[in-house]
Amino acid sequence: MRIVTEQKSGAICQSMKDRGVDVVLITDFERKRDTSLRYLSGLPTDAELLLFSDGHTVLIPWDLGLAGKMAEAHEILNVQDFDRSYRRARSHALSSRLGKTFALEVMPNESYLEVGKIGEEFPDVNIVCDPKGTGYAISRARRVKEQHEIDVIREGCRQTDRLIDMISPFVQNHPDCREIDLALFLETEMRKLGAEKPGFETLVANASRSAQIHCYPTASTEPLTKQGLALVDFGLVWDGYTTDVTVPMAFGNLNPTQQKMIDMVQKVHDTAISRIEPGALAHEIAAEAIGALAAQGMNMHYSLGHGIGLEVHEGPLLGLKPKDPSALKDWVETPLEPGMVFTIEPGCVDLTHGGTRLENDVLVTATGVEVLTSSRLLRFPSH
Amino acid sequence: MRIVTEQKSGAICQSMKDRGVDVVLITDFERKRDTSLRYLSGLPTDAELLLFSDGHTVLIPWDLGLAGKMAEAHEILNVQDFDRSYRRARSHALSSRLGKTFALEVMPNESYLEVGKIGEEFPDVNIVCDPKGTGYAISRARRVKEQHEIDVIREGCRQTDRLIDMISPFVQNHPDCREIDLALFLETEMRKLGAEKPGFETLVANASRSAQIHCYPTASTEPLTKQGLALVDFGLVWDGYTTDVTVPMAFGNLNPTQQKMIDMVQKVHDTAISRIEPGALAHEIAAEAIGALAAQGMNMHYSLGHGIGLEVHEGPLLGLKPKDPSALKDWVETPLEPGMVFTIEPGCVDLTHGGTRLENDVLVTATGVEVLTSSRLLRFPSH
Repeated sequence: MRIVTEQKSGAICQSMKDRGVDVVLITDFERKRDTSLRYLSGLPTDAELLLFSDGHTVLIPWDLGLAGKMAEAHEILNVQDFDRSYRRARSHALSSRLGKTFALEVMPNESYLEVGKIGEEFPDVNIVCDPKGTGYAISRARRVKEQHEIDVIREGCRQTDRLIDMISPFVQNHPDCREIDLALFLETEMRKLGAEKPGFETLVANASRSAQIHCYPTASTEPLTKQGLALVDFGLVWDGYTTDVTVPMAFGNLNPTQQKMIDMVQKVHDTAISRIEPGALAHEIAAEAIGALAAQGMNMHYSLGHGIGLEVHEGPLLGLKPKDPSALKDWVETPLEPGMVFTIEPGCVDLTHGGTRLENDVLVTATGVEVLTSSRLLRFPSH
Repeated sequence: MRIVTEQKSGAICQSMKDRGVDVVLITDFERKRDTSLRYLSGLPTDAELLLFSDGHTVLIPWDLGLAGKMAEAHEILNVQDFDRSYRRARSHALSSRLGKTFALEVMPNESYLEVGKIGEEFPDVNIVCDPKGTGYAISRARRVKEQHEIDVIREGCRQTDRLIDMISPFVQNHPDCREIDLALFLETEMRKLGAEKPGFETLVANASRSAQIHCYPTASTEPLTKQGLALVDFGLVWDGYTTDVTVPMAFGNLNPTQQKMIDMVQKVHDTAISRIEPGALAHEIAAEAIGALAAQGMNMHYSLGHGIGLEVHEGPLLGLKPKDPSALKDWVETPLEPGMVFTIEPGCVDLTHGGTRLENDVLVTATGVEVLTSSRLLRFPSH
């Protein structure tokens, strides 16, 4: 069954009508995923969806059986009836409802070739692609979670906390463990708890790798318990929704720089969370946090946080207001709203002293904020 | 270090010159992955690459540190120097080498919005997008593996075979196991063997789910050892390269239809492999296999096989020649060449009797074929 509510679906269609758009194409396949298809149809994977401005939906799934069980759409076309060609099935659906002249909107990340093919087949079609268009309307709908979504996310976060609590005992019982051992332990335990899968590749970085922002591989065969700052960044998928936390770790005694890094990140984390309430501006919370770290000479080259939901990265983004005019043109201020769920993840890296990051998942409530996870610094004696 | 050889890189650049293309843009980010970036630069993730027709390369990575360690490019730009804007960094690189008038090729799956942004900034640029262009030239280079790639794949397949051998003992020792238990067991054991990660979501389908082509979830909490036809479809990533096998399972006595399905799939599998040699046409091998199943009333609604490598699905595709004129226009016949590595995976599904599939990975050699994995039917007594 689809996740979008009637009210939200109505608002999305209204935004199409306001801009003169007759139909929107959403595609979700291996090399170009778009979980909005699941949001709007209930089908978790591999299909094309046409959403007409009157609310009518046509789904063209790869697997008709799965669509029959999980999808909700006014029409479900069998691609086998169209010589296994999504293009032919899609063209049939478009021309039978709209003729040959209409305005078709594509998502900003739709493939350039595919849009060209539509233009060839429908030379009179007006193709619309607007970063503030339907894609944005769907993202705005998705970033404010409904109660049933919040219930799922809260349970996912509760299970994530159980995993966080398992880290210290695991490390104490396996003082010679490697990064990969902790990653594998968490990924195994999350499945035992009932998670569908990891939300993303579990990252475990020991003191010599924690200053890397993207560790490759995400968890290596190096020993974990090296003296200094380490971290584990992981999440799980619970009933379709992803959690995302980073647990900072300190092995042995920290030097003053490392201790200052830990203290500053904790302070910035706590301050940022205290700023969260309906109406607060996402980019202002980000600017304060990143500015506070910069004032101490600590550079944070990424955003303070990002929405989580059907994807590990979705709206709202807690990033800086862009300076680049081209990016600024597409940028929209984001006042926080009750129901938004996102990460707060300040951190800093130092090529000599390592890196640290503290990340928790939070929910904006009617009056402020609820912190859904309880990541915190884990300390271990020297090994 | 980059994977592409000088010779292959030269052929790719020649194909650009032949078509009057000055530069190709390749992007690899979260919502639109393109492992060709890794192939051409060595960087496994998150960057933009400009490949100029004279062979010059400019890389704009998300993580400069990772690029410093893993990438090979003539220039590596720091996106921080461009206000964290890939567009600005890219524009700088383009205009400083080519001015304002040039031919830029984008990959067929490049985002429509991004291409539009380039057109806005460079109104005199000629944007080229051709399914038979550079993307195809790269895919052609990638689908014939070099010796060092074959060595890695062969080792990955050897480890995959070790996992296949663990399935029967696991099921015998856990007669009440659920689908998810076997999936988790394989994913844990593959890491112990040294694999980076699963190649894709491990699929375990018991007798009541095996007739589904896309199982969702891929492994459920249902008991595995139900009487009838089951299967497990899994792979591992070994040093960047993915394996992909499907192991069919039979629990208890099969009825005549089920036995016929098993026998036909084995026969079609063996015949297809016997047809593999340099010069054989991929679509003819696929047509013979799919036709042989169809002649017995068994429908196989997918391709006979697909290349494996940096991705679980890459060229060559062993699929039918398309009938749709639009698809046929972009279609190219594929004669097999030594060094190609792909799956052979005939199967059939029946809503009453379940589904079965036998999948192995093969390498085309100078004189024929080498079967790299040893998946085969596993039989279990009634439980």
